[in-house]
Amino acid sequence: MDKWKEECGVFGVWGDPRAVELTYLGLHSLQHRGQEGAGIAAADGQHILCKKGKGLLSEVFPALPDTLTGRPYCIGHVRYATAGGDELENVQPILVRSKYGSVAVAHNGQIVNAPNLRAALEEQGSVFHSSSDSEIILHLIQHGHGSLLDKLTAACRTLDGAFSVVVLTEKSLYAMRDRFGFRPLSIATLGDGWCVSSETCAFSAVGAKFLREVAPGEIVKFSAHGVESVQYTQELRPALCAMEYIYFSRPDSDMNGRNVHAVRKASGRLLAEHDREDTQADLVVGVPDSSLSAATGYSEVSGLPSEMGLVKNRYIGRTFIQPTQDLRDLGVRLKLSVNASVVAGKRVVLIDDSIVRGTTVRRIVRLLRQAGATAVHLRIASPEIRYPCCYGVDTSTREELIAASQSDRAVCEAVGADTLKYLSVADLEQLYGKNRCCYACFNGDYPTDLCPLRADFAVD
Amino acid sequence: MDKWKEECGVFGVWGDPRAVELTYLGLHSLQHRGQEGAGIAAADGQHILCKKGKGLLSEVFPALPDTLTGRPYCIGHVRYATAGGDELENVQPILVRSKYGSVAVAHNGQIVNAPNLRAALEEQGSVFHSSSDSEIILHLIQHGHGSLLDKLTAACRTLDGAFSVVVLTEKSLYAMRDRFGFRPLSIATLGDGWCVSSETCAFSAVGAKFLREVAPGEIVKFSAHGVESVQYTQELRPALCAMEYIYFSRPDSDMNGRNVHAVRKASGRLLAEHDREDTQADLVVGVPDSSLSAATGYSEVSGLPSEMGLVKNRYIGRTFIQPTQDLRDLGVRLKLSVNASVVAGKRVVLIDDSIVRGTTVRRIVRLLRQAGATAVHLRIASPEIRYPCCYGVDTSTREELIAASQSDRAVCEAVGADTLKYLSVADLEQLYGKNRCCYACFNGDYPTDLCPLRADFAVD
Amino acid sequence: MDKWKEECGVFGVWGDPRAVELTYLGLHSLQHRGQEGAGIAAADGQHILCKKGKGLLSEVFPALPDTLTGRPYCIGHVRYATAGGDELENVQPILVRSKYGSVAVAHNGQIVNAPNLRAALEEQGSVFHSSSDSEIILHLIQHGHGSLLDKLTAACRTLDGAFSVVVLTEKSLYAMRDRFGFRPLSIATLGDGWCVSSETCAFSAVGAKFLREVAPGEIVKFSAHGVESVQYTQELRPALCAMEYIYFSRPDSDMNGRNVHAVRKASGRLLAEHDREDTQADLVVGVPDSSLSAATGYSEVSGLPSEMGLVKNRYIGRTFIQPTQDLRDLGVRLKLSVNASVVAGKRVVLIDDSIVRGTTVRRIVRLLRQAGATAVHLRIASPEIRYPCCYGVDTSTREELIAASQSDRAVCEAVGADTLKYLSVADLEQLYGKNRCCYACFNGDYPTDLCPLRADFAVD
Amino acid sequence: MDKWKEECGVFGVWGDPRAVELTYLGLHSLQHRGQEGAGIAAADGQHILCKKGKGLLSEVFPALPDTLTGRPYCIGHVRYATAGGDELENVQPILVRSKYGSVAVAHNGQIVNAPNLRAALEEQGSVFHSSSDSEIILHLIQHGHGSLLDKLTAACRTLDGAFSVVVLTEKSLYAMRDRFGFRPLSIATLGDGWCVSSETCAFSAVGAKFLREVAPGEIVKFSAHGVESVQYTQELRPALCAMEYIYFSRPDSDMNGRNVHAVRKASGRLLAEHDREDTQADLVVGVPDSSLSAATGYSEVSGLPSEMGLVKNRYIGRTFIQPTQDLRDLGVRLKLSVNASVVAGKRVVLIDDSIVRGTTVRRIVRLLRQAGATAVHLRIASPEIRYPCCYGVDTSTREELIAASQSDRAVCEAVGADTLKYLSVADLEQLYGKNRCCYACFNGDYPTDLCPLRADFAVD
Repeated sequence: MDKWKEECGVFGVWGDPRAVELTYLGLHSLQHRGQEGAGIAAADGQHILCKKGKGLLSEVFPALPDTLTGRPYCIGHVRYATAGGDELENVQPILVRSKYGSVAVAHNGQIVNAPNLRAALEEQGSVFHSSSDSEIILHLIQHGHGSLLDKLTAACRTLDGAFSVVVLTEKSLYAMRDRFGFRPLSIATLGDGWCVSSETCAFSAVGAKFLREVAPGEIVKFSAHGVESVQYTQELRPALCAMEYIYFSRPDSDMNGRNVHAVRKASGRLLAEHDREDTQADLVVGVPDSSLSAATGYSEVSGLPSEMGLVKNRYIGRTFIQPTQDLRDLGVRLKLSVNASVVAGKRVVLIDDSIVRGTTVRRIVRLLRQAGATAVHLRIASPEIRYPCCYGVDTSTREELIAASQSDRAVCEAVGADTLKYLSVADLEQLYGKNRCCYACFNGDYPTDLCPLRADFAVD
Repeated sequence: MDKWKEECGVFGVWGDPRAVELTYLGLHSLQHRGQEGAGIAAADGQHILCKKGKGLLSEVFPALPDTLTGRPYCIGHVRYATAGGDELENVQPILVRSKYGSVAVAHNGQIVNAPNLRAALEEQGSVFHSSSDSEIILHLIQHGHGSLLDKLTAACRTLDGAFSVVVLTEKSLYAMRDRFGFRPLSIATLGDGWCVSSETCAFSAVGAKFLREVAPGEIVKFSAHGVESVQYTQELRPALCAMEYIYFSRPDSDMNGRNVHAVRKASGRLLAEHDREDTQADLVVGVPDSSLSAATGYSEVSGLPSEMGLVKNRYIGRTFIQPTQDLRDLGVRLKLSVNASVVAGKRVVLIDDSIVRGTTVRRIVRLLRQAGATAVHLRIASPEIRYPCCYGVDTSTREELIAASQSDRAVCEAVGADTLKYLSVADLEQLYGKNRCCYACFNGDYPTDLCPLRADFAVD
Repeated sequence: MDKWKEECGVFGVWGDPRAVELTYLGLHSLQHRGQEGAGIAAADGQHILCKKGKGLLSEVFPALPDTLTGRPYCIGHVRYATAGGDELENVQPILVRSKYGSVAVAHNGQIVNAPNLRAALEEQGSVFHSSSDSEIILHLIQHGHGSLLDKLTAACRTLDGAFSVVVLTEKSLYAMRDRFGFRPLSIATLGDGWCVSSETCAFSAVGAKFLREVAPGEIVKFSAHGVESVQYTQELRPALCAMEYIYFSRPDSDMNGRNVHAVRKASGRLLAEHDREDTQADLVVGVPDSSLSAATGYSEVSGLPSEMGLVKNRYIGRTFIQPTQDLRDLGVRLKLSVNASVVAGKRVVLIDDSIVRGTTVRRIVRLLRQAGATAVHLRIASPEIRYPCCYGVDTSTREELIAASQSDRAVCEAVGADTLKYLSVADLEQLYGKNRCCYACFNGDYPTDLCPLRADFAVD
Repeated sequence: MDKWKEECGVFGVWGDPRAVELTYLGLHSLQHRGQEGAGIAAADGQHILCKKGKGLLSEVFPALPDTLTGRPYCIGHVRYATAGGDELENVQPILVRSKYGSVAVAHNGQIVNAPNLRAALEEQGSVFHSSSDSEIILHLIQHGHGSLLDKLTAACRTLDGAFSVVVLTEKSLYAMRDRFGFRPLSIATLGDGWCVSSETCAFSAVGAKFLREVAPGEIVKFSAHGVESVQYTQELRPALCAMEYIYFSRPDSDMNGRNVHAVRKASGRLLAEHDREDTQADLVVGVPDSSLSAATGYSEVSGLPSEMGLVKNRYIGRTFIQPTQDLRDLGVRLKLSVNASVVAGKRVVLIDDSIVRGTTVRRIVRLLRQAGATAVHLRIASPEIRYPCCYGVDTSTREELIAASQSDRAVCEAVGADTLKYLSVADLEQLYGKNRCCYACFNGDYPTDLCPLRADFAVD
């Protein structure tokens, strides 16, 4: 798929002398959730220290600073920067110090009532240093009363939208999740301590043992008193972002008790079942890496061999910007290369996880044809994306969504495929479980009342 | 597989104003052949300029220098550094200037008579700046007579061992290969110009059209006079390194007319055929990335589903060295993670391409069992490695090779698998073609008379 | 002198398309005021962009970013970091965005009522991101009412202590100074625009024409409406930091109408006049660079030749920390080297600008004697420093001040000199003008009622 | 002065466990001799390791590598790169390994018969990696016979021109100097070990004790056998480069028994004596830093006060290249700033050490006049430079030398001064001693028969 981007990963450890090293390792396992910024805040019972920067985790931390290591309480963040917000001041965790003590916060998601909250806070004299909606959480905390848990509870009730958040104080760790559970967040045991992570794949990286997900509407506190849980609201509407299954998450993560790879493979099987009699083809090719599971599933049901018809270059990180159009086109080939010996003279079923703007899949279809594929049957392991996301996924306007304004037939022509089929929302419900996910980008059914981007869509 | 490492990639362009950009893109496609050094030498008809450094291509060239771009003749190199030789002075291309003009050389392979040649040259007063055997080529050229082609011919006849070399002068490009063809080297057309590459996958990255391989014992010259070819010897013994198929090369490269992915998949099919009645299992898991093709082949013949039971972290580049053993063990999990939901309670056929020391596969088997796999049947898509390589592969001593001194049964126990099977050299000959490859690391049949490492092996 | 460090430089340009380049050049001329952080904020009439980082200006800005250049309104800051405050979040300018617009602030000085103000603001829910007292200025602005000029006026009346501040909005520039004028701040014309700088030496670097100093208690606003001035208080007590003349400022800056080099030279003349009959010596040596002017003055009155007996190494920037005491001692010689041929066998008058802890001058005296000087008569171009500074100079405790607890005779012995003489506060008043400077560090006469460090001094 | 640049500094230590650290410190004291490259080679009795790079010493060595420290034999080099030769391959020391052992060489000077020697060596098959004439020394050594001392002796006799060289083997150190002694080279004791340096100022930085200069035509060997000396030729013609006194060397270095500062001060006194009745002026200003000693001397004889009329910015290292002419002009002001308060309304005697192209002094005169100086009397502490240097000083063509083709009167007009006076070669002989220096750039009297640049000068 193209230009559909994930928003951030958070990780935390409570009560381990190796907390900083483990957070570093955990964030490495979450690096796919954000490559444009990383940070770690660590506490020793008395003070919090925070280091962060732009770029990959390994760029921000070529080595772990001695000043951080040894502190037993720690949170971390990897960040995907949306347009215009790539300033260092937006990198997380955000740490503030006050006479009430220090608080560091790392946030995954998007607050839909951020503009209103920010305006109200500024009216009261609050000074914002960043354009990040995450900073609002800190201001709400500061304006609260009572214990920090009281303040967090009040803040969670005020916030609307998507937030999976970890909060660090001098000696406690909090994990909290919005009442929809848009973004994943799980907890695990780690020796005598605890561990929190956006995805479960990070637990195995640090040797932690998965316990359970943080529930929608729940705040979990880890401290010397053990684990406490507060269910801050009963108005729940479980709505895990379907894109976590389709594209964002790592195949070795589990969500809602389902393994991501297994769900993706099952989606490929479903695509093949819908195809039973129709499609005449010689082989199946998945777009690496996110569509390889689905391709295997398709192969098993259809009996068509699954071939490595597309190869991803593992070393393309940050290449220089090519100046001429001529070279830019070559740049595309560099990231993804067709294995001509495999596809030449063959009818190809091409599996991709989703289509956003259609730009990338169009290039892939063209490359396959240039390499001699005689037919390209495009199968998408998700429905047509027709609505923008308000909860942290970076598809800003409806104009960018190729399926928002064009029929499937027109899209098929636009991307140059012979045939094109999608899964339906009903298919996804069958795969992910009933009433458990948010499908707003497919059907416009936004779980929150407020949605800043809905105004773009007069028809809805 | 573990700790079996490739040696270098070379690339060249003649006659394109974008030669430097294309060489950069081509080297990116060859980055898997060496990540410890990179360099580009470019000529404008009158002068050669060379830039190189340690690290990945994108680290050495965060941007392409203006002083290089625009020059229409270019060669490049990516390098894997063997122990003790990671100095900058060993990074290639090596450029020398003399009154006869300038010459830049990039070399893939290993010269077996290097010590003798070097001693003889020093006797005559030659000064060596590096410990690299590649520098010898330049000295031999300088001591030659006649045209540069004459000098290269004489040098090739003097050199023994593995060398696929590109040579750049102010306006010409040469590609030459030893009489065994140990390391791959191919040529392609590129508009009105020419292109040379270690692997054919790089041709599609730059939009070049594959023409043919440089033949064993051949020197090809590209210049304003077109293409010239010299067959400098008739004593040929084709012996492409089998490891190029098994592990080194990219799946979208072709060698000896065979596609690497297709050969690997066929090797998996062969493993399954040998297993027909024997193996009771629930699923097949390939070690990513090099064994995924073989796993698919095995799945298709055996009917067992192929699952993503192991996930490779794409972002592990250069992480800090963990100080404690405790953290080091976690580091292993970080690079390769088991998908517990997939393997728990299952009998797994684990496909790996080869076993060198056995360290990595032992860890993988342990991770699988910790994740709940009830059986692990290890299938290796190549024979037992029992002999060290003299031609550029970094397995220095026989002690390191687990299969050199232990029976298959002992190895199986050592790595913790339930059963262990290999392919045979006969199997490989069936896959790769008769009399086309070097199998010395499997059977000790070294193509060259001289082999500096043979002395280690009294038994042979 | 040793370990007496300056606090920051500020610079601003209004109404020049080259504002960012000029600010860069201006900050270069102020680099001596702070080498541990630098930043530039620039506005284009609609938005403010801010870039900053740790280190020298040339390290923070190896090149000027395209996103900054071209914006006609600009402020900049170079920073000296006091202990514990070297975090990036403390680097200036500080930029905040609110619904009232964006504001960037750069501050030189120290707010003495910062702890009280901060506590009160936090009580009202303010969130602080840094430990810097400068951030308070922004919070006070945000809590104000009316126009920004009204808010700044209210803020200035609330702040106590030392502040020379430049403030940037989307299209206006403000310069404001505390009612004591502790730190210098001047304005200049620059074509049709305006320029503000901590020191006048930066004006000549950018081709600006000195107009006047910002008066104590004044706010000057530069906008499309021209220049406006507000005198926000009449309770004035001019108290320019005497150390600006003695040590901080560049010799080519003017303050209160007096040139810094000229004042320093005059101080050397005064030292010589006090010495008239007493001192038997062969030559005068000034500690480079700050005491060279004084040494010349001494030479002219005394008739003793001024010699380059000490040479400063121009290339010592950031050298590695030497591990052993042995090497550390060598490190001292490296920064400052004795010209043995000049001092051997000679009686030396050594001129230094001031003594704080005495560590450096002790080393210098020892080096001179090791090089063969037969006598060292130490002359200090300022009085004994006995009290800590509350207004931004980094001498934290009285214990560190060698003259605070020891007699001149004891100090003379401690530093190893034969004789030691200082100037008196009366001498300084003669040089700098009556009632124009702060001499608190010499006589404990603090201009502000509040002084956080006074508590250390029971005697006062 | 402008664009007259020095060529390199060399340093070496024999027999101290801190040899690498001391070499680092020593090179820091020689950094003024070259800022474009630095390197250190160190031996432990068995192997030599060499690290080098482009830029300042502190840039090449942000820390001293553990692999180097602890080795007791060491040489180092700081390098000024002449045009076209700024490649890494030209950075020194140059290390070569051969079956005869390893040899590292660092060279200050210029070999005048380099082209002939290089051509002859290439004829014999030698391969050159750099364009540096220093590499020739290594090839000559390799072609020699007998002991290394024999080989060095033969090499020194073959080389013509300027060479002050340090040579390191696995356990010995050699210092050798051409028969003219163009470039300085001295030796010192260092505990039980030895030290070699281009300038004596570096000895005090490392705590070494000056012993004597290496004599022209001498090779000194330091080894476990103590110190040996070979006088390889009796055809001596002492010709220390006069520019070492005038501009290159640090004021705290001694050469031929004379202190550089003292000689410079004496040159200023001589200028004043020549001026006795003539010049009507108010003050003396020296161009910092090299002309400050001369200015003091002038002041003492003339009775005019010496003022800091020009201030050098200490922090201008590597600033970005300004794109527009407008900004470029500002860039000049940035490096050197006029102290307007000092010179306004005054008649200034401006002392500079020499004039090469006249560009810089012209700008300085203009700046002084813009700042209000009513007269500028330019006094140059050396004669007119009319001939290019063949021995390592970078003034390539006669066209660049303003005094080569123009009368003093024309030069005076060109630079905008009211009057202009130089010292004569006779004056210099009086200052430096008779028959001790090379004055070829002033009078064309080249000490060597061969001079590659002489051909440019038909008139001579």
